[in-house]
Amino acid sequence: MDNLQYQEGRTELNAIGQYALIERLTDGFETKNQSTITTAGDDCAVIGTGDIKTLTTIQTMAEGIDFDMMYTPLKHLGYKAVAIAISNIAAMNGTPRQVEVSLAVSNRYSLEALEELYAGIRLCCERYDVDLVGGSIGSSLSGMVITVSAIGEVEKSHITYRNGAKLHDLICVSGDLGSAYSGLLILEREKVTYQANPDFQPDLDSYDYVLERFLKPEPRLDIVKELQRRGVVPTSMIDVGDGLASELLQICRHSKCGCEVYEERIPIDYQTSRVCSEMSKNMLPISNALNGGGDYELLFTIDQKDYEKIKDMEGINFIGHITEEGSPAVMVTPQNSTITLVAQGFRNG
Amino acid sequence: MDNLQYQEGRTELNAIGQYALIERLTDGFETKNQSTITTAGDDCAVIGTGDIKTLTTIQTMAEGIDFDMMYTPLKHLGYKAVAIAISNIAAMNGTPRQVEVSLAVSNRYSLEALEELYAGIRLCCERYDVDLVGGSIGSSLSGMVITVSAIGEVEKSHITYRNGAKLHDLICVSGDLGSAYSGLLILEREKVTYQANPDFQPDLDSYDYVLERFLKPEPRLDIVKELQRRGVVPTSMIDVGDGLASELLQICRHSKCGCEVYEERIPIDYQTSRVCSEMSKNMLPISNALNGGGDYELLFTIDQKDYEKIKDMEGINFIGHITEEGSPAVMVTPQNSTITLVAQGFRNG
Repeated sequence: MDNLQYQEGRTELNAIGQYALIERLTDGFETKNQSTITTAGDDCAVIGTGDIKTLTTIQTMAEGIDFDMMYTPLKHLGYKAVAIAISNIAAMNGTPRQVEVSLAVSNRYSLEALEELYAGIRLCCERYDVDLVGGSIGSSLSGMVITVSAIGEVEKSHITYRNGAKLHDLICVSGDLGSAYSGLLILEREKVTYQANPDFQPDLDSYDYVLERFLKPEPRLDIVKELQRRGVVPTSMIDVGDGLASELLQICRHSKCGCEVYEERIPIDYQTSRVCSEMSKNMLPISNALNGGGDYELLFTIDQKDYEKIKDMEGINFIGHITEEGSPAVMVTPQNSTITLVAQGFRNG
Repeated sequence: MDNLQYQEGRTELNAIGQYALIERLTDGFETKNQSTITTAGDDCAVIGTGDIKTLTTIQTMAEGIDFDMMYTPLKHLGYKAVAIAISNIAAMNGTPRQVEVSLAVSNRYSLEALEELYAGIRLCCERYDVDLVGGSIGSSLSGMVITVSAIGEVEKSHITYRNGAKLHDLICVSGDLGSAYSGLLILEREKVTYQANPDFQPDLDSYDYVLERFLKPEPRLDIVKELQRRGVVPTSMIDVGDGLASELLQICRHSKCGCEVYEERIPIDYQTSRVCSEMSKNMLPISNALNGGGDYELLFTIDQKDYEKIKDMEGINFIGHITEEGSPAVMVTPQNSTITLVAQGFRNG
C-alpha cells in the first residue's frame, strides 16, 4: 500500500543538475509525429510542418523557491511569470502569440490576491501583444505554484538554436548583467533586517533599477525585432535566465565549441557595482554577472560578416568570440589572465 | 516591505467556483493576435490561421489535492497526468501530438522516483502516439506539482466546442461513469485501515477495474477516431473530469439550453455498484456517476440525423436529449420523477 519503494538506493536530485536530469529522464523517448521538429534541450520545442514554425515552452515557479512572498508583489509576480515564458520564445528568435497560465494555490490566497496576480499577467500580455488563451486554477496544500506555457511563431529559416555557433562567431549580449541578482541581494538583506525589527522601514528608492530588474524582468523582444529589421539571424541564441557563465557553457556544449569572452566587455550597470561594494568588499560585480541569474537578456552569436549590420545597434555588447571544439570556455581579465568558466547557476548541471 | 495587503477585505477562493473564478480573473483581457481563435472557457484554446487548427491545454495536479502519494504509484501518476491533458484534446474532437511536462518537486523525491514518474509519462505518450517535446524541473518546498500542457490538431470544421448543442440533439456518453470515484473510495478506505494498522495487507484484487479507472484513466481517443470514421461531428463535447452532472451543466450553460437524461440509461459498471453497496447502504451508484469525477469519458451531443450512423457503435450510450433554452438540466428516474441536476464536482462553480 505504501509507496516508498523509491526510498531505497536513492539518488538525491540535487546531486544532478537540471539539464542532466531532464536528459536522463527523457532518454529513450521517441518522437512519432511529423510535426515534431525538435524536443527537449533548447529554450523551446519547435513544431509544425509548414514554413512558419510553432514554438512552445513551459516554465514553473514555486513559492519559497523561485519567489518569496515577503517581498514579491503579486502583480510583479504575474508579470514576471509571463515575461520569463515569453523570453524563451525570444531566445529562439520568435514572436510570442499566446500564453496559458496554470495555478495551484493554497487557501492563504484570496480572490483579491489572485486579481493582483492577474493584473500583472495582463500587463505583460498587453505590453508584448500576447493573448492569454486559457489555463486552470487548482488548490495546493501550501503556497503557490504558477506554470506558464507560451506559444510563439518563427519563420523556419530564422530559428536560432543553441547549437549553431561556429568558430570565430562573435558573442553578443543585450542589456547589462548581474543587476537582477543584485536586486535580489538587496531584497534579501532588507528581509533579514525587517525580520529582526518589524518597525524597520526599508529605504529602497536608491535601488530602483536593480529591484525592477529582479522583480519585473523584460523579455528582449525589441532585440529580436531589431535584428530582424537589420537582416541578421544569429547563429545561436539563449536567454540569460541563469548566469552568463552557465549560458555560455550551454551554447558551447550544444554547438561543440569553446569560447573566449573579455571581462571588460561584459556590461555591468553602476548600481550593480554599488550593491556589490555595499554588500562586501569581496563581492565582485563580475561574479554577479557570471553567476547571478534572472536578467533574461539575450546572449547570441553572429557570423563575423554580420558585424557591420549591428555594430552600432543600441543595447548590444560584443563580449568575445567562439573558439574551436575542445577549447574551454574562458574569460580573459584586463590583466590578460584567463579564467575557466564554471556553471554555478542553480539550475544547471 | 510585507506583502499582506490582500489580507484585508479578503474573499476566500472556496467561496467561488473554478469556472467563475477564471472568468472573473480574465475579465477584460483582450486578444490581439489573428491566430487566437478562442480563449478560456472550453477544454482547449484554439489557435491558428489555416484550416488545421492547433489545440492547446494546460493542467496542473498538486500532491495532497489531486493525488495522494500513499496510494498513487508514480508510474501511474505520470501516465495519468498526460492522459488527463490529452483527454482535453479529445474533448475538442482533436488528435493530440505533443506534450510538455513541468515539475516542481521537493527533495523528498529521488532520481529513481522521477524515473518511475517518467516511465509512466512515456507509456502514455507511446500509447497515444504523443511526443514529449519539452519541459522543466524545478524545486518546491513541499510535495510535487506536475503540470502538463498538450498540443493537438483538428480540422476547423471538426472542432467541437461546449456551446454547440441544439434543441433535440441526443446526449451520448462513452464508457461507464462513477467507476473512477469508486476506485478512489476504496483507496481511501484502505488508507485509513493501513494507518490504523500498518501490518494490514490490503486485498485489492477484486477491485481491479475501479482502481485502474481511478489511477490510470484512458483518454477516449478511440471514440474520437470512430466518430470520424463514421462521419459524425458531435454538436458539442466535453470530457467527464468532474461528475456527469457538472459536465452536463457546462454544456447547457455554454449552449444555452436545458437537458433531460434518463437514470436507467446512465452506464454504471457492476464493480461501481458493488463498491457503493459495500461502503454504505445509503450510497447510490448513480450518485457516483453524477458527482464523482475522474472518469475522463466523453460526453457529447449529436444531431438526431446522425443517430443511424452511430447507434450500433460500441462503448456509447444514448442517455437523453437537449431541451430548450430556459429549461433546467434534469434526470428522469425509472419512477418517472425528475431530479434537477446540481454541480457538485469540486472544480465547479
